[in-house]
Parts: sequence; structure tokens; C-alpha cells
Amino acid sequence: MARAWHLKSRPSGMPTHDDFELKELSLPQVGDGQLRIRNRWLSVDPYMRGRMNDVKSYVPPFQLGEPMEGGAVGEVVESKAEGFAPGDLVLHMGGWRDEAVVSARAANKLPDLGAQPQQFLGILGTTGATAYFGLLDVAEAKPGDVVFVSAAAGAVGSAVVQIAKAKEMTVVGSAGGPDKCEFVRSLGADQVVDYRDGPILKRLAAAAPDGIDVYFDNVGGDHLDAALALARNNARFAICGMIDSYNKGEPTSLRFIMRMIAARIRMRGFIVFDFQPRMGEFYRDMGQWLASGAVKSRETVAEGLDTMPDAFLGLFKGENIGKMLVRL
Amino acid sequence: MARAWHLKSRPSGMPTHDDFELKELSLPQVGDGQLRIRNRWLSVDPYMRGRMNDVKSYVPPFQLGEPMEGGAVGEVVESKAEGFAPGDLVLHMGGWRDEAVVSARAANKLPDLGAQPQQFLGILGTTGATAYFGLLDVAEAKPGDVVFVSAAAGAVGSAVVQIAKAKEMTVVGSAGGPDKCEFVRSLGADQVVDYRDGPILKRLAAAAPDGIDVYFDNVGGDHLDAALALARNNARFAICGMIDSYNKGEPTSLRFIMRMIAARIRMRGFIVFDFQPRMGEFYRDMGQWLASGAVKSRETVAEGLDTMPDAFLGLFKGENIGKMLVRL
Repeated sequence: MARAWHLKSRPSGMPTHDDFELKELSLPQVGDGQLRIRNRWLSVDPYMRGRMNDVKSYVPPFQLGEPMEGGAVGEVVESKAEGFAPGDLVLHMGGWRDEAVVSARAANKLPDLGAQPQQFLGILGTTGATAYFGLLDVAEAKPGDVVFVSAAAGAVGSAVVQIAKAKEMTVVGSAGGPDKCEFVRSLGADQVVDYRDGPILKRLAAAAPDGIDVYFDNVGGDHLDAALALARNNARFAICGMIDSYNKGEPTSLRFIMRMIAARIRMRGFIVFDFQPRMGEFYRDMGQWLASGAVKSRETVAEGLDTMPDAFLGLFKGENIGKMLVRL
Repeated sequence: MARAWHLKSRPSGMPTHDDFELKELSLPQVGDGQLRIRNRWLSVDPYMRGRMNDVKSYVPPFQLGEPMEGGAVGEVVESKAEGFAPGDLVLHMGGWRDEAVVSARAANKLPDLGAQPQQFLGILGTTGATAYFGLLDVAEAKPGDVVFVSAAAGAVGSAVVQIAKAKEMTVVGSAGGPDKCEFVRSLGADQVVDYRDGPILKRLAAAAPDGIDVYFDNVGGDHLDAALALARNNARFAICGMIDSYNKGEPTSLRFIMRMIAARIRMRGFIVFDFQPRMGEFYRDMGQWLASGAVKSRETVAEGLDTMPDAFLGLFKGENIGKMLVRL
């Protein structure tokens, strides 16, 4: 019998263990064009918090009492689809469970880039692509720009720092606590600010005394406000995530939003799925950076399906360095 | 003796009459390359509030004890500059006074568009150009778009409404009180919401049940938040002004800023001066729209230099319909 995490209740504010339930799941027979997959790695992502709410968004909400979903890498154990054979490693969306039956059209064999399988959930997956397209396309960051990245020790943030350095930008990263700050420094960031040390605005002003050209926002709230305060003329903000707000009912309070006018700031929200047709560019560049060592991937790994809610809740307590994963 | 309004004290919050002082001004002799101008019309603009603060911005602050400045149309009464003769009407920045001596390089003869002189401070001046470039370039508004314009009875807003209709967009305008709403309706707006009737979000949701593609922001605050709440995918916001915040010390509170991500919203602040090299396009289109009657200009006129602070303070009480001017 397969097992899957189900959504037991919709949290208001920070989710708790009571919102999740691990239950047996009877899988259907594998039909024509389908695969049965034994999962090896489960992706753990902040955006999943949004799917726990019953609101329309770019991905549909999880349904109460139903199994949850997410990115996963697994091994095909039974195939009734052309081009797939037992033993193949595939990327698919049947996560939060140990086994899944999925349509072969919703599964992709891992590209042959000489990478480890779990990297396709992180640096070579939507995480890395989010960093890549967000920085280079949405924020139009160029060599020489001063780039501020929040949550720079996180999965997306740590990729942004490294891509920015590979492209010869000056990078200021924020993170919480000395270990994470040290990690961000080890990625090549020129300046690191610890937001736990005091108001981020003051720290950022000291780290980027001439202001910033680009802000890659993973946090929102006071980080966004500090970026508005210190933006140079024609600064570009890529709005990728606002983890500070996912569990809060409170509005975002911005003292410096009026600077958008005088400094001609551009802010743009984005979803990485919109860049799907351009994944070839991303694989080419990121594959080269990984091979040359210009970009390294870092993961925080929890062991076993039972740990999935812990790993997920850990994201909001800042427990991960780099990509958060569960290994089965 | 000329007379000019001087900045007596820097207001915190809403300015009062005590912040202004009308004093005599001894003008210099007209030197080579200079003009003496008798002003006919003075421009009264919300952005002038920013110049009363001692902060760096896109225009330098007014200096304490010094004469204030602003757009003006006047008649040349003495010229020591080639190409200018007594009787010429010119546009220049020596406003807030009855007479000025300025460099001819800082004065422009009014283009021959068959328009009234004061229109070059409004619909054919930076006011109209702000509406034109903000809507069509910054917000990339296209025929068929649903456009929300705040302060739609104001100088810039009323121009945006008419340009949007001339370009076959659907327009929702907000204004305060029945007279202004009636005026906005008379400009061709498809829907008008009176923000004095209750929360703007609820009103806007009723007026634009399928959401908005473009928001032209003159107000900030709750109007901006409502636009974020109701933005369709790929909506574009031109951030032109935030009159709601100019006199408040409070931060802007946004409940819906996180929608930027899921809806891929683009927000861009702008300053019309950046479009100076493209004024030819604007004169061509706006000249045609005025000639054909597709765009009409509306002015609120105060009489005499003494009324200048009243006219200015009136902007923040919503006393103007269309462009606020002082006639001398």
C-alpha cells in the first residue's frame, strides 16, 4: 500500500502538524500511457503554503481530505507508456507520497547533464530556474549592477547569489543568523546582512552605501521597504516570494513606496512556469556553471516520508540552508 | 516691484498659509541672453508639495526664505535674447510670482497648435504629457484594456480618461463627490466610483467585475491596494503620484501586494521629464485630439497672485476639477 500526506484542515496563519495526515492510498492499476513511480526525493517549497488556502491562484488549492502534491524525483517501477522503462528516473508532480501513478505526459526523464537526481528539484529544477529567469529576465540584472537578494541562504536566494556573481554583479545578501550568513559569504556574496541583528534598513544602508540597482525579493515586508528606500534611479525589483507574509494576516506596511516615482523603480511579480518554453537556455547555462564549479548546490535533507510536514514547517522557521528536500 | 511667494517654513504634514509669504522681489537687470516676463498664468501642481520638504528628489527642494518656483506662461516684456521679442508668449519655470527674469534657454515659445495659452500648463503641458506617456508607454495600455484611473477628475486623471477613450479602452475612474463623478462621466468614462461612498475596493469590484488590466495611480494608499486586489494577469500599473501620502507621515498599508506574484503584476514609477525628447509625439496626438474634440481641457481658475497658496492647498482638499491654475 502506498502512503501519502493528506490535507486534514486549512490553516489560518502558521500551519501545524494537525493540518496534515499521513494515510494509506490505494493506487489505481497502471493504465495505458501511465507510469507507476517509486519516489526517491520530495521537493519542499514555500509556495506550497499558498496551496493550503482555498483561493484561486496560479496553481489550484489542495483539497481537504485529499492527498497533497508537489515536485518529486522517482524511479519508474511499472510502465505502460512508450519511451519509459522500469529503472528510469523521472521528475513529476506526485510528491508528498512514497508511490504514485501518473500520466507519462506529466513526467519528464531527467536530462543528461551529469547531475545528481535531486538537483533537478533544486538548482537544476524550478528553484534554479526561478533564480535564473527572475534575476536575468524579470529584473534585467546586468554586469556591474548592485544586487540585493533576501533569504539569500534559501534555495532560490542561494542560486541568485551565485548566478549574480557568475555574471559579475556586486551582491548583498540577507539571511538570519551567523551560520546562514557564513554560508552566503561562502557563495561569493560581497556583503551579507543578518536581519536578526536589527532593522534591515540600517544594515542594508551600511552594506550598500551607494544604493542598489536590483532587488530579488523572497521575503516582502521590511526587506521590500528597505529596498525601496535604497533603490537607485531605474532600479528593477523581481518579486518572487514574500515568505514574511505567507502565514500572516497583516497587511504589508511600506514607508518608502513613494520612492517608486522619484527613482523610477520597476517592480514585477513573476511565476517561473511562464518561462517553461525557455528551459533549454537555463539548462545550458546552469549545466556549465555547475560543471565549472561557478555554482554549487546545497541541500538540507530530511529522511523519510514521516518527516515531510516537519521539513515543510521548517521552511518558515528558517531551518534550511539551500534547498529543502525529503529523501525516501 | 515684482512680488513672489516665498517659502517661510517647511510644513510637516498638511501645509498651512503660515508656510508661505508674499514678498517684494527686486529683479535683476535683464542681461545678455535673458528675458523679463510678465506672468499671465501660474501652474498649481501636487508635486510642488514634495519641493517644500528638504529632501533630495527629481527636482531640488524650495529653499527657506527664497522665492518658490513652478510652471508659468507669461508675456515677454523685455528681451536681450535672439529669437524672442516683446509680446511673445513663453512657457517657463518662474512661477509663484508676477514677474520674472529668466534665461531664454529656460523659456519656450508656445508651439503653434491653435490652443489657448494656459493649455500649455495643462492638457498640452506636463500635465497632459504625464497622462499620455504614463498611460501609453509606462503602463503599455492597449485598445480593449480595462483601465482604472484614480483622481480621475484631477488634471492628470481627466486627461488619462479621455486618452484612454480615444484609444478604445474601457475606463473606470474614481473621484470624490457627485460633481466630480458627473464630470468624469462627461469625459466618457464607462464607470465612475465615488470613493467617498465607502471602501474603494468594494466599489471598484462592482464597477470592474472582471478585474483591471491597467491602473494609473495618482492616489496610492487604498486605491493602490484595491487595484492590486483586482488586477488581472499581466496587469500594468503606472505609478504617477500618491497624493494620499504627500502630507501623511504614515506608511502605506497594502493587504494585496502579494498578488503581484500570482497575477504577474508590473508596477513602474515614472517622471514625465524623462519623456522630454518625445514631446513631438505628444503634441501631434494631443493637438489632433483637441482639434477633433476627442479630448477637452477643463480648468479650475483662481484669480490673482494673492490666491496662489489657497489654490495650492485646495489641491489636497480636492477643490479642483481638471487643471488648477492661477490667472494674473
